Amino acid sequence: MGLDYRVKCCPDGLVTDRRRRIRVLDCTIRDGGICNDWAFDKPLVRRVFRALSEAGVDYMELGYRVRGGQAGPGEGPWRTCHEDDLQDVISESGMRLCTMVDAGRIDPADIPAAADTATKAIRIATYAHQMDEALRLLEDVQNKGYETFVNVMAISTLGPDEVDNFLLQLGRSGVDNVAIVDSYGALYPHHVRYLVHKYMNYLGEKIKVGVHFHNNQQQAFANTIAAIDEGVDFVDATVMGMGRGAGNCPLELLLFYLDNPRYDVAPVLDLVETFAELNEALRWGYHPPYAITGYYNLHPKPAMDRMARPDRYQVRGMYEQLAGRLPAGRAPGTG
Amino acid sequence: MGLDYRVKCCPDGLVTDRRRRIRVLDCTIRDGGICNDWAFDKPLVRRVFRALSEAGVDYMELGYRVRGGQAGPGEGPWRTCHEDDLQDVISESGMRLCTMVDAGRIDPADIPAAADTATKAIRIATYAHQMDEALRLLEDVQNKGYETFVNVMAISTLGPDEVDNFLLQLGRSGVDNVAIVDSYGALYPHHVRYLVHKYMNYLGEKIKVGVHFHNNQQQAFANTIAAIDEGVDFVDATVMGMGRGAGNCPLELLLFYLDNPRYDVAPVLDLVETFAELNEALRWGYHPPYAITGYYNLHPKPAMDRMARPDRYQVRGMYEQLAGRLPAGRAPGTG
Repeated sequence: MGLDYRVKCCPDGLVTDRRRRIRVLDCTIRDGGICNDWAFDKPLVRRVFRALSEAGVDYMELGYRVRGGQAGPGEGPWRTCHEDDLQDVISESGMRLCTMVDAGRIDPADIPAAADTATKAIRIATYAHQMDEALRLLEDVQNKGYETFVNVMAISTLGPDEVDNFLLQLGRSGVDNVAIVDSYGALYPHHVRYLVHKYMNYLGEKIKVGVHFHNNQQQAFANTIAAIDEGVDFVDATVMGMGRGAGNCPLELLLFYLDNPRYDVAPVLDLVETFAELNEALRWGYHPPYAITGYYNLHPKPAMDRMARPDRYQVRGMYEQLAGRLPAGRAPGTG
Repeated sequence: MGLDYRVKCCPDGLVTDRRRRIRVLDCTIRDGGICNDWAFDKPLVRRVFRALSEAGVDYMELGYRVRGGQAGPGEGPWRTCHEDDLQDVISESGMRLCTMVDAGRIDPADIPAAADTATKAIRIATYAHQMDEALRLLEDVQNKGYETFVNVMAISTLGPDEVDNFLLQLGRSGVDNVAIVDSYGALYPHHVRYLVHKYMNYLGEKIKVGVHFHNNQQQAFANTIAAIDEGVDFVDATVMGMGRGAGNCPLELLLFYLDNPRYDVAPVLDLVETFAELNEALRWGYHPPYAITGYYNLHPKPAMDRMARPDRYQVRGMYEQLAGRLPAGRAPGTG
């Protein structure tokens, strides 16, 4: 089939070596849940758990914990991840469960000790300007016995000095894992290569570096490949790329690329039909409105709003307003 | 908006320099035509011509010339590109028109002199094993006054020595442009970097090198970026990535990336709504069946066939048969 050629033509033996140490975190139910307000039914979450576990995925992120443990109106059970819901979908597995908390939206008192929950890792999502609060939260969950991740969001909006500052703080914090998070889908691979080196240099050898990318410009998987080539320790992905707006790095593509007997893509392929049906209604993935916000390095919300409208693909006006070609009073997309 | 950061964080000033010399070839009507048997109506082709011309696109490829000038049953006018059809859709423009011919499917007698047609460039598509015939065709169209391109297809199936051989032949041929063609969507960026250097080294300084990539593994645009970074001269793209199977590099993303006042993405964005409607029916773009043939370095036909079936997303069986896990007699996709 000519596979030989692709192997022979690879100029860098390191690529294979670096792929060997990668760990995979699936955040389908957490980030994908932003598409459907975390209203996955339990049989589906149970199926996803089993499939990811059989595929050899290292971490499964299921949702959030929030202040007071109460979901908002219309939000499904994986917004809050109550312990009885978690217990109802999991079974014996070597895969570690992970839950996200947003700095500013949780009281430490609402987080149980790690010994009292199936969740063994906590990911703290924070903006750089909330880092002091994130670090207090981090100390609390470290004391409660969790493996810890910190996701500093919207990295593409920060100056290099701002990135250096929070990395220095995190480097002293004892956190286990830090992800480079391209919330706006604004980065190209050359940005990723630069950032991976910066994160590794500032965080030192004891803190693992990972990536969480969005697909606004069809770069989520490509940026993940760039990060793997540069030596990151873990990568985020979701089934069929399900995630906010343009979605994430597709897990099935990632497992093909890793080409490691530690992982088996086949159980994930069993989920494709169900997630394709979800996508018919929810429409995550590459669509030109997301490309426009990604290119302009903006939060995807205006593109998500457009994608909910019947005229979602009338995008020239949206672009021209952002480019400063239309008067500010003229609404994006009406041109 | 934080755009500064992305500029400042770019470690390689060369990236910008290299983008400056790129030329863009749009093949929406030619490669996209594989999705609808080239049955675009004339007003749409006229709109595409105007939009590409206003966008500053350098070449527009409209279709094929075929033996005897006769389209097959069910094929639309852009399969054959009769001169009156061409004249009916074009208007004053600096954009050059290009037509493809397949080695083995055309007699030189069916190709007019360049002076007698609006088409100023001919692209010869060939497999490596047909190179002698392709070179005879090349000599004919050179003598007729055309700018010439050669696309050697299915590069991912060849051994390095086979690539060297045809590159040496092309290097002596006087051809103007040669594209690296990933017909199977099998290549990752590290393969592309290697191939760009090989093509440039073997073809010498007088022959321009370009790329034509497919999106089976969401790498068409990413591979194009890698090729641009390595210094290619021209790149292929299509509106919304329209093209056979998983499609091509999306023109709108490419023009954003090139970030060059020579190009204006806005007229292309005017086409998005129409092409999104076409895609509702034709379904080109990333879908897991294409990822499977891409990963296995196979022609996309089995994936295209599956995408035409109602059970298109039941892909585990397809994968497992290709992986040798199922008995050969069991049809792909029935598992």
